[in-house]
Amino acid sequence: MITVLCGGVGAAKFLEGLVHANLGEEIVAIVNVGDDEEMYGLHISPDIDTIVYTLSDLVDRERGWGVKGETYQALNRLKELGAPAWFTLGDRDIGLHLFRRHLLDVGHTLSEATAEIGKSHNIPLRMLPSTNQRLRTMILAHGETEELLSFQRYFVERRHQPTVKGIFFTGSSEAKAAPGVLDAIEASRIIVIAPSNPLLSIAPILAIDEIAKAMAAARHKTIAISPIVGGRAIKGPADRILDSLGYPVSPLGAAKILAPFISMMVIDDVDTNLSREIEELGLEVFITNTMMVDLATKVELAKSVTNVSKELQ
Amino acid sequence: MITVLCGGVGAAKFLEGLVHANLGEEIVAIVNVGDDEEMYGLHISPDIDTIVYTLSDLVDRERGWGVKGETYQALNRLKELGAPAWFTLGDRDIGLHLFRRHLLDVGHTLSEATAEIGKSHNIPLRMLPSTNQRLRTMILAHGETEELLSFQRYFVERRHQPTVKGIFFTGSSEAKAAPGVLDAIEASRIIVIAPSNPLLSIAPILAIDEIAKAMAAARHKTIAISPIVGGRAIKGPADRILDSLGYPVSPLGAAKILAPFISMMVIDDVDTNLSREIEELGLEVFITNTMMVDLATKVELAKSVTNVSKELQ
Repeated sequence: MITVLCGGVGAAKFLEGLVHANLGEEIVAIVNVGDDEEMYGLHISPDIDTIVYTLSDLVDRERGWGVKGETYQALNRLKELGAPAWFTLGDRDIGLHLFRRHLLDVGHTLSEATAEIGKSHNIPLRMLPSTNQRLRTMILAHGETEELLSFQRYFVERRHQPTVKGIFFTGSSEAKAAPGVLDAIEASRIIVIAPSNPLLSIAPILAIDEIAKAMAAARHKTIAISPIVGGRAIKGPADRILDSLGYPVSPLGAAKILAPFISMMVIDDVDTNLSREIEELGLEVFITNTMMVDLATKVELAKSVTNVSKELQ
Repeated sequence: MITVLCGGVGAAKFLEGLVHANLGEEIVAIVNVGDDEEMYGLHISPDIDTIVYTLSDLVDRERGWGVKGETYQALNRLKELGAPAWFTLGDRDIGLHLFRRHLLDVGHTLSEATAEIGKSHNIPLRMLPSTNQRLRTMILAHGETEELLSFQRYFVERRHQPTVKGIFFTGSSEAKAAPGVLDAIEASRIIVIAPSNPLLSIAPILAIDEIAKAMAAARHKTIAISPIVGGRAIKGPADRILDSLGYPVSPLGAAKILAPFISMMVIDDVDTNLSREIEELGLEVFITNTMMVDLATKVELAKSVTNVSKELQ
């Protein structure tokens, strides 16, 4: 079994490579729910949805998220009617959120709803939300004023422009790991922390005490792939956030955050010069091409990361 | 002030005539909520929506309900995903239901949400749901087996094919009239019961005790327009339901149901022969063309009904 801790787009790409690498092992994706947002009664799980859309090939490859060939009739009506409509919701995407709402309304947990959604899309791996409780990432953002924003309000409504002064995970102290999560961490041959934002996508998973403890105990078999390449985030505001919160804007920053939970850091060829500093954190370093620009490079990364893991045993 | 008790399509057509008759009086529509349905977290108010779509000219004139130029991307996704999808929901229609859900979620009553929706669509009359409480029409239906169905399950999912053995209004004993309803009934110069199904659309309004009492007290100024013309319902299953519940399938059946609340029945020219029997119920009869096939006939009916009401004073 291979377990992957997942945020959104970067994780979805890595999972795509892992699936197509045909390793003959069960794959479990433990997915961040801190970005989830409820609006108009819909329950939106952006990281789960991005994985679903990517692995079912419904994804808009241009954007990396959402559904290809999408239309916006419902959203346009909401705008006409004067509803808050800062979150881009396509009609086909709304279909999925209505389905999730339906599953939750008839009494399913988020885990069960996620499994059902995975099944309906023929997703060839097991997706587990990190928790079934309400854990939400809140951003203390400094733009014109200082505000506490939900992740999506910071990320989408404010286009991640405000400076991030702090990140909080409301509900994390009450949250328990969803069923299957701790077992997967314990039973897996290898755990991969996907190239997702360590502070925004991975930290909310590790903010659940049970998961942090299980991950710390599984440190010897855990590898992280840096989402920062050549001093820049591949996608999103990770570079600016690392900087504003006092971390090096490099794989070293990611390594410092994740060090208690990993024994190896995967960095891109362009960051070879950082090897020594990362090693000084007590981590092994694996250098390879981490840029997943097409299916071949995704599969290549999945193969090399799962292969190098054998050196950890 | 003119108040109209309303179901769906027939009421919307009558209101359209009343608006275009330019009578210079405030129009209040008290609208049935017994057909409301919650699904996928959406709150659907079919009778309110039909009035909104008709008066804002968004309506699909061919069908008499729903939005013209509609698309079904979200519903198709729900079908693909295996969700129950027997209720036709277009993407633009979903936009309105999401808006209503949003308004209710932020703390508005159904009255307030309805007023907001009316305002957003520039509806030139005051729409009041009969109640803000949860009142639902339930159908004891006899098809292959005997089942208790929500109105929409009976009407849409079963295409109103099962025989109706009974009609119940759950929540009616706790339901209070929504704000403004009793005042409108009392203050209006004339009250019109729209040509809506008396058992399915009007009865759930009158099932609210406060409203029934106010309507009984306003009997002298209340006129009903028969939804049955020439022994057939203009739309829907009213004729079969009248028959299966033991009422004459004619304006006489409607008159018998509504007699405690009205002093005049408006019937179509083709039903002239029923005048005497209706008069024997203690009602006046007004005979005119009640077939609203275009805007001119709608305006004509609105004018003649509001004009004849002067004879009631």
